[in-house]
Amino acid sequence: MSKTAAIIGSGVIGGGWAARFALAGWHVRVFDPAPDAETQLNRLLTNARASLPGLYDTPLPPAGRVSVHDTLADAVSDADWIQESVPERLELKRATYRAVQTVSRPGVTLASSTSGFTPTELQHGALRPDEIIVAHPFNPVYLIPLVEVVTAPGQKDDVTAEVLRSLGMCPLALTTEIPGHVADRLLEAVWREALWLVNDGIATTAQIDDAIRLGFGLRWAQMGLFETYRIAGGPGGMAHFLEQFGPALSLPWTKLMDVPELTPDLIARIAGQSDAQSGHLSLEALETQRDANLVGILRALKAERWGAGAALTADDAARMPAPGAESAPLLTSARTVPMDWADYNGHMTEARYLHAFGNATDRFMELLGVDADYLASGGSFFTAETHIRHLAELRIGATLEIRTTCLSGEGKLMHLWHEMRSEGQLVATGEHMLIHVSLETRRPAPPATPVAENLSRIARAHARLARAQGVGRAIGDPR
Amino acid sequence: MSKTAAIIGSGVIGGGWAARFALAGWHVRVFDPAPDAETQLNRLLTNARASLPGLYDTPLPPAGRVSVHDTLADAVSDADWIQESVPERLELKRATYRAVQTVSRPGVTLASSTSGFTPTELQHGALRPDEIIVAHPFNPVYLIPLVEVVTAPGQKDDVTAEVLRSLGMCPLALTTEIPGHVADRLLEAVWREALWLVNDGIATTAQIDDAIRLGFGLRWAQMGLFETYRIAGGPGGMAHFLEQFGPALSLPWTKLMDVPELTPDLIARIAGQSDAQSGHLSLEALETQRDANLVGILRALKAERWGAGAALTADDAARMPAPGAESAPLLTSARTVPMDWADYNGHMTEARYLHAFGNATDRFMELLGVDADYLASGGSFFTAETHIRHLAELRIGATLEIRTTCLSGEGKLMHLWHEMRSEGQLVATGEHMLIHVSLETRRPAPPATPVAENLSRIARAHARLARAQGVGRAIGDPR
Repeated sequence: MSKTAAIIGSGVIGGGWAARFALAGWHVRVFDPAPDAETQLNRLLTNARASLPGLYDTPLPPAGRVSVHDTLADAVSDADWIQESVPERLELKRATYRAVQTVSRPGVTLASSTSGFTPTELQHGALRPDEIIVAHPFNPVYLIPLVEVVTAPGQKDDVTAEVLRSLGMCPLALTTEIPGHVADRLLEAVWREALWLVNDGIATTAQIDDAIRLGFGLRWAQMGLFETYRIAGGPGGMAHFLEQFGPALSLPWTKLMDVPELTPDLIARIAGQSDAQSGHLSLEALETQRDANLVGILRALKAERWGAGAALTADDAARMPAPGAESAPLLTSARTVPMDWADYNGHMTEARYLHAFGNATDRFMELLGVDADYLASGGSFFTAETHIRHLAELRIGATLEIRTTCLSGEGKLMHLWHEMRSEGQLVATGEHMLIHVSLETRRPAPPATPVAENLSRIARAHARLARAQGVGRAIGDPR
Repeated sequence: MSKTAAIIGSGVIGGGWAARFALAGWHVRVFDPAPDAETQLNRLLTNARASLPGLYDTPLPPAGRVSVHDTLADAVSDADWIQESVPERLELKRATYRAVQTVSRPGVTLASSTSGFTPTELQHGALRPDEIIVAHPFNPVYLIPLVEVVTAPGQKDDVTAEVLRSLGMCPLALTTEIPGHVADRLLEAVWREALWLVNDGIATTAQIDDAIRLGFGLRWAQMGLFETYRIAGGPGGMAHFLEQFGPALSLPWTKLMDVPELTPDLIARIAGQSDAQSGHLSLEALETQRDANLVGILRALKAERWGAGAALTADDAARMPAPGAESAPLLTSARTVPMDWADYNGHMTEARYLHAFGNATDRFMELLGVDADYLASGGSFFTAETHIRHLAELRIGATLEIRTTCLSGEGKLMHLWHEMRSEGQLVATGEHMLIHVSLETRRPAPPATPVAENLSRIARAHARLARAQGVGRAIGDPR
């Protein structure tokens, strides 16, 4: 049965949480008295539905219902998790917790999205302080996996990490409380230095952004700070790096001892530079571009099973759909077309049909017993020939399913027929001839006994199926 | 004729420069008296050759020669560009410049890789101060595009940006000198805060790296700081963001007023945590993983024509090879197999064959006149059917060429035959039937006159060619 999350405050952060929970199958009940709250929430839900499902190569569970409520009690009384994202004012947060815990069920986690306050500060004066923790996410919450989880000294918490992981997030557990946790300490340091650089006329906002995104931002997206510097230290590693670059710490390379005053002039200068830099793109266009960039980066890291991409791979493995009975074509893939599979007009680009069929072939091989151990033992199937027919277009965000018939499977040869459907419509077929090879000699060789037996059994079962239209077709044959 | 770059100091930074110059076609003459200099240089050259060429979808120019020299004079006397990357000690750098300019040709740029010193500081006491500038790159120099270019007040410089762009780099021109330029001001702020977090036991090096690479590092790889916050400001933009988050500047969210002392204990703690985090991977494994991650991220951004990826697209457009005479198959692609096209065993994965053939089809369409204007006018070709034969394996880093024959092209149909070769060996063929469509109705429609005429002319010329083996083949036909 679906669980229910209450979202208190549905701005950029709370709305992002609503999308994370709903797309993970939770029902979501929202409370936010702001007049434009529902408009903002709907924009975030739309953005999330367009980007998040495509991070995966497997289907997400059916989405939960999102409902907006006029009273706090309506939103929280049945909730299994309560996420607070109201403005960063300590008294407002404390008052919210008193109101929430008057109507919420005892034992339910009340997580704050605060970027600055500690659990001890937040818990002060609460009805049930032990339920209150910090779960600090990062915008856009529906795509960035990091969430800082902070607890007060002695506070027990054994459910939070599991819940957050089930939302596709990567919890970072911190047990020492400091204002700003960890990430915002780092962000604040950069922000202060950047304000000085603009204030002193050293660089514009566009130049500072380029200094980051064309340079160290690329490194940080995958290895962070210390691992990057470990490599820079060469064979001597981190200790050598510290000895080499430590002395710079004594240089006056920061103005952070002092804080720039945000005068009206400085605000106007920064806002003006930002308009010159990004003003040609609407907020919606910037959000869509950011999300497409993030999906592309996350999927690139996923292909490397590294950093933010590693968790996505693990989620897919746990969600691979069951193939169904061998008396029918096997379900070998179910997924959403991701943003980075788009051609120039927002449809799935040609090569990604073969990408999807290739994944379906990999899944079929896995069902035969061609797994990591089998590959390590030196056997695999290589594709010799492929024939694809494109029968209809697929938009980014569409769902697709592939069902696979084994046309024959004896000796070294395996002949597969994939049918790709979206919403029941046949959109493409893929016919593939594969040859079993020895990975050592790279030459054809018969498969090992269990794989050969599995293949032969499925081929016999599928031989009873009607032959699909299009099998054996050559390009240029009359339709 | 190839130009010559002199590399003075060939450590991690100088060696990266050597690779950039050599792969852009420059001859490179290296001087570095360190005993292990040549070993380190060769490792960097190997890394660069494995990763850099695959950033592009076009061929790089033939690589230049890299030679190592025993004397400074040998390295610099014929150089058209001199890049200094000796250790960060001002007197050492000044002494190096005096030695260099005694033997270098007048008028040749002498660029320093310094991360901290200003041009005015560097030029002091030089024979020809005006030749000395700062060109500060980022490790790995062969993949990260940013280079900070700093000049002294009044210094003229009209060649540097052009040279650096020809190396595939993105120069950021700064005309106000400060210690640490721009990027290292930001890096130093984060570094100091991170040292405090470890020193105070708030977080380990692994936790800090995760706080970056699972969170804001992903944002910074594509938009940097200000553009990210502009979106967070919502419809009110940057001015609204500053009003909302400005007050945090008065909070004590940084310890940078003070500098942590790098005691032996702190060094040992950081080195130990770094070993626990990354010690299971060798330096070489970390470098390879970093480079594969960066290639994947850069190519994801390239597909979006955004940030660090936008410049790569522009370089490709300028380097597209000429198709050759219409009396023969046309050269529609020449490229290196990039790192992100690898399957589990380091060969080009199945779907990327269609990716490469799809690019070749796009190029053929461009030669017919199907360009951005034509697409905007509402016409295009859609692929209806594809038949691929895999004849040999391709390793990551291999070069490939595709030549295209137009088998027929009348009315709405276009029938293409691609042959993919590597080092002369036929590795795959692609047979494709395309249909011209109206992008408005998404239905078949005849191409406009100039495109139809170009197609028909090439089809008639190619009709005289011998029919390739494999044309019209169906899967399962006897070989």
